[in-house]
Amino acid sequence: MNTPAQRSAFAPLQNDTFIRACLRQATDYTPVWLMRQAGRYLPEYRATRAQAGSFMGLATNTDYATEVTLQPLERYPLDAAILFSDILTVPDAMGLGLSFALGEGPKFAHPVRDEAAVAKLAVPDMDKLRYVFDAVTSIRKALNGRVPLIGFSGSPWTLACYMVEGAGSDDYRLVKTLLYSRPDLMHKMLRINADAVAQYLNAQIEAGAQAVMIFDSWGGVLADGAFQQFSLAYTARVLAQVKKEHEGVRIPSIVFTKGGGLWLEEMGQLDCDVLGLDWSVNLAKARALVGQHKALQGNIDPNVLFANPAQIEAEVARVLDSFGTPHTGAGSGPTHIFNLGHGISQHTPPDHVASLVQAVHAHSRKMRS
Amino acid sequence: MNTPAQRSAFAPLQNDTFIRACLRQATDYTPVWLMRQAGRYLPEYRATRAQAGSFMGLATNTDYATEVTLQPLERYPLDAAILFSDILTVPDAMGLGLSFALGEGPKFAHPVRDEAAVAKLAVPDMDKLRYVFDAVTSIRKALNGRVPLIGFSGSPWTLACYMVEGAGSDDYRLVKTLLYSRPDLMHKMLRINADAVAQYLNAQIEAGAQAVMIFDSWGGVLADGAFQQFSLAYTARVLAQVKKEHEGVRIPSIVFTKGGGLWLEEMGQLDCDVLGLDWSVNLAKARALVGQHKALQGNIDPNVLFANPAQIEAEVARVLDSFGTPHTGAGSGPTHIFNLGHGISQHTPPDHVASLVQAVHAHSRKMRS
Repeated sequence: MNTPAQRSAFAPLQNDTFIRACLRQATDYTPVWLMRQAGRYLPEYRATRAQAGSFMGLATNTDYATEVTLQPLERYPLDAAILFSDILTVPDAMGLGLSFALGEGPKFAHPVRDEAAVAKLAVPDMDKLRYVFDAVTSIRKALNGRVPLIGFSGSPWTLACYMVEGAGSDDYRLVKTLLYSRPDLMHKMLRINADAVAQYLNAQIEAGAQAVMIFDSWGGVLADGAFQQFSLAYTARVLAQVKKEHEGVRIPSIVFTKGGGLWLEEMGQLDCDVLGLDWSVNLAKARALVGQHKALQGNIDPNVLFANPAQIEAEVARVLDSFGTPHTGAGSGPTHIFNLGHGISQHTPPDHVASLVQAVHAHSRKMRS
Repeated sequence: MNTPAQRSAFAPLQNDTFIRACLRQATDYTPVWLMRQAGRYLPEYRATRAQAGSFMGLATNTDYATEVTLQPLERYPLDAAILFSDILTVPDAMGLGLSFALGEGPKFAHPVRDEAAVAKLAVPDMDKLRYVFDAVTSIRKALNGRVPLIGFSGSPWTLACYMVEGAGSDDYRLVKTLLYSRPDLMHKMLRINADAVAQYLNAQIEAGAQAVMIFDSWGGVLADGAFQQFSLAYTARVLAQVKKEHEGVRIPSIVFTKGGGLWLEEMGQLDCDVLGLDWSVNLAKARALVGQHKALQGNIDPNVLFANPAQIEAEVARVLDSFGTPHTGAGSGPTHIFNLGHGISQHTPPDHVASLVQAVHAHSRKMRS
């Protein structure tokens, strides 16, 4: 475990553009990072994964997790790193038995579908997730202050989707059946998930994460009304428990609800610093709705990366221009963090990512001049 | 083919509640029908399908198509029937070779992915779709004026998704790659699709369809900006060509974009009578945005049907109440057509559908008193 003395030995942050933008402070350009930036589209990632043997082999090994987290930074001048891990580590630590079959998505051996299974759920001992916190500390050291490190977790609702379905789903029938027929059980599961996620994020912060992000990947599948009750309320419960600072340094928090664009006004009331947006959202409208309270992160369609570099540049400019000129003076004001609207595709040509990052930096500097 | 004399021999409409609500006229209760109401959740449907041997065997046989269209009306007092067919009949008639493998979705033998394939596309001879128009006439006759018959088509963009991907997709990578890298080809394909869809819907109207619906099932996967250019503009192109009346009778038109809730204001400008909404949309907000110009259709989560009847009733009341009391006087005003937010699940217990339909009729009568 890390002592405070060890933690304070982390190198000072050289590029704080991402953190400043999260806190709605002026920056010289718009920072950019990419969801799933350490991933299968990179040949060096595929090589490391082949050595590790499996996805969880990668995620549970400190050296491998550190290596793949840093790989995209060697290629591109990204403004943040994100912990290499999976959103399902928490339910795995709860004893649900996570596995990744080759070429398929995640699977749980023990899905939670009835009262008896819900009764057995509890916030897991964080010691079972020590491999994650060790990876955070190792990555933070390896970054050596180059860019900040983002920690993350799935949202309570998104974890519940996988916990009930036992795997991915295209209709969320099982989890919604539980929600509509046994809302009491669903609320109980979500309370446990929220408290577990909060402890998990706080432990990441203590291990060295400089910002945290909650991925509500499946919030958007809920009906209006159900979203507020079963997703948003529990994201708020997490945020109420997550540290806002650590050792005197502010730790920004980001909430990303894929498909949550219709609920932006309500999400604007969350006690977080940044809202992540998918590509269906108009950034000018989003800024008008929530821009005074939150920084915005997003939101180019990852499929733009399959066009040629000139077209990528044009689309990057369109997204930056739709947000408009960010706050440039003293104090705080509307700021933008460039990202994709969802994870990068494994089929993306790596050279096209270089074009995107370069275009974000160049165009956003031009916008400020 | 049908002569005007034959068509005028159609029985007079007894239950015009759905048509009146489409045209924003007062009704005694809120009409209800369900997307995919003739389908696999009904044992009698599964029996007919087993006789027909395949999905397209059902859809292309006039007697079978008539039989399954009427099946849900025998069980439930629904206020409209919808033609039993598939959204992919038009690209099939273009020569793309549609098939349905058992347990899988639709597949095209000849997907459209390059300039040469786009160059070969043309509005198909409507005679190749005669089986659809024959089914429309047969169903209209069999309905004998009980409730109106809705005809339908996929939207130009939704057809293009399948035409390029060649099947369903979870990332729309191929169609979006074409969109971002060769927008000229995409626009060409969409123009052809739009003109084909317009001819297809007009032929359904001539054959006896009393309302038409455009399913933009995949409009919601587009980025803001791309949606307006590549989906909405071509839905508008269809609507500009679709008959507004036939033999002196108004033919209402419905546009449903799954995941299109963020673009409701722009969709409110479409030249159609009704906007269909999925469950993510708040009906009160939607009514405030577009209620003066359009009737609204939707939007309960189909998964509510897995709860018990008392819970179904409560959710039905919540959806009806969120729209609020519809227009009840003379002239036109805000009206609501109850529906699911997407197609009914094949796993739905048929008795639960009876509870839903009963609850819609009972609660909506109470709201008006």
